[in-house]
Amino acid sequence: MDKRPYLLLANDDGYDALGLSFLIEVLREDYDLLVVAPDGPRSGFSTAFTVMSPIAMRSVREEEGLSVYACSGTPADCVKVALNRYTRRRPDLVVSGVNHGDNSSVNAHYSGTMGVAFEASLQGIPAIAFSICDYSPKANFEPLLPYVKDMVSRVLREGMPPLTCLNVNFPLRSTFEGVKVCRMGNCRWEKEIVDCPSPRHDAEFYWMAGNLTNLEPEAEDTDRWALDHGYIAITPTTLDNTDYRYREILLNSW
Amino acid sequence: MDKRPYLLLANDDGYDALGLSFLIEVLREDYDLLVVAPDGPRSGFSTAFTVMSPIAMRSVREEEGLSVYACSGTPADCVKVALNRYTRRRPDLVVSGVNHGDNSSVNAHYSGTMGVAFEASLQGIPAIAFSICDYSPKANFEPLLPYVKDMVSRVLREGMPPLTCLNVNFPLRSTFEGVKVCRMGNCRWEKEIVDCPSPRHDAEFYWMAGNLTNLEPEAEDTDRWALDHGYIAITPTTLDNTDYRYREILLNSW
Repeated sequence: MDKRPYLLLANDDGYDALGLSFLIEVLREDYDLLVVAPDGPRSGFSTAFTVMSPIAMRSVREEEGLSVYACSGTPADCVKVALNRYTRRRPDLVVSGVNHGDNSSVNAHYSGTMGVAFEASLQGIPAIAFSICDYSPKANFEPLLPYVKDMVSRVLREGMPPLTCLNVNFPLRSTFEGVKVCRMGNCRWEKEIVDCPSPRHDAEFYWMAGNLTNLEPEAEDTDRWALDHGYIAITPTTLDNTDYRYREILLNSW
Repeated sequence: MDKRPYLLLANDDGYDALGLSFLIEVLREDYDLLVVAPDGPRSGFSTAFTVMSPIAMRSVREEEGLSVYACSGTPADCVKVALNRYTRRRPDLVVSGVNHGDNSSVNAHYSGTMGVAFEASLQGIPAIAFSICDYSPKANFEPLLPYVKDMVSRVLREGMPPLTCLNVNFPLRSTFEGVKVCRMGNCRWEKEIVDCPSPRHDAEFYWMAGNLTNLEPEAEDTDRWALDHGYIAITPTTLDNTDYRYREILLNSW
């Protein structure tokens, strides 16, 4: 049984999200799975971890080749607790998602789905984050099936350079134009704040909202362009965010 | 009065933290300041933003050339709310910290102090994050004074490439060997989970803790090496975390 690859699954939408259930059903046929996911929605949690309170772990499903736990912490916490206490052995791969919503371009910085992949990568384990450009909790994941299966088996076979992970985003379509290897597009969130009327007089209240503007809509090598044109976008992502070009400038002038 | 540069200050230790008070006192002499900081500690919040609840903003100090607000959200929220609703005009620079604790190497991914700088950079504003390798709430910030003043005026004068920020870490010393422009060191958190005994039987509880191991202790170009040898470490940081080298590999093989 231990000859089957061993995968850790997590997400930021919670252990009962449809995107995660889809991943479990697609992958359990070929792999042994440990699933550690938040006990509720954790969108926008980035790579945050829990400092000021204990983290609760609860078993919610136990079957042959499949264990599922709900975690009170952040998406990155799920990976940390799993790797330190719940894995049978070191996982061959960490798979995150499928997120209900777009994590391309700058969204990768805010994404808890990417936080899972970041944390895995920082621990030296290859990781893929899957997201679909559909925020509906009832999104249809069926068109993703062959691509998810293929990408997972491919990364297991070929490995991944250290301190990297894959950010994979699917456009909202039933068929795709193909798969494109991209760079992260430069987009910007605008008009992010909406008033939240309240009966209180001791503070002002706001909701976070906003529109994402593509600052380079013509750039065909970006993940945003790929998604806007019906392609599945794969953005190879590094955890070394040193700016080596800027560093050269500073080394010569500071 | 509007001829003086206009700076937005934020942090992750809260509006009343000593490191932020130090920044305010050092910078208010030469600059007009808007300070929007969390209403309590937000360490480890990364670039998280608040999705599921409203954000409360409360004025806590209003003086000539200085406004201070406490925000119920994350460090990145502070920047978002400030830029959308509280700035008089577009700030010339965002300054984060001084954080009570080390944000070099992989810590940058978890850091709310860096979350402030990331958010500013994503909004097209130059940003510097300052941190000191001293977790004490009573850390002595005086030795940092000339360096903070110099770096701020230098970035205001010279600008910064798009989608970058500076991650500046000070070692715990009263005098420094000098300033080093570095790359992000490759370190790994280990033994991160500590049992949290509890009277409950429906879950297991854990605290997050851990040791940071330097995976390349001899690499003299890293921020960790600089700090371990008494230097102030400046790590130029990019928000484009595309892995261009890995991308080439995939473009040729996928």
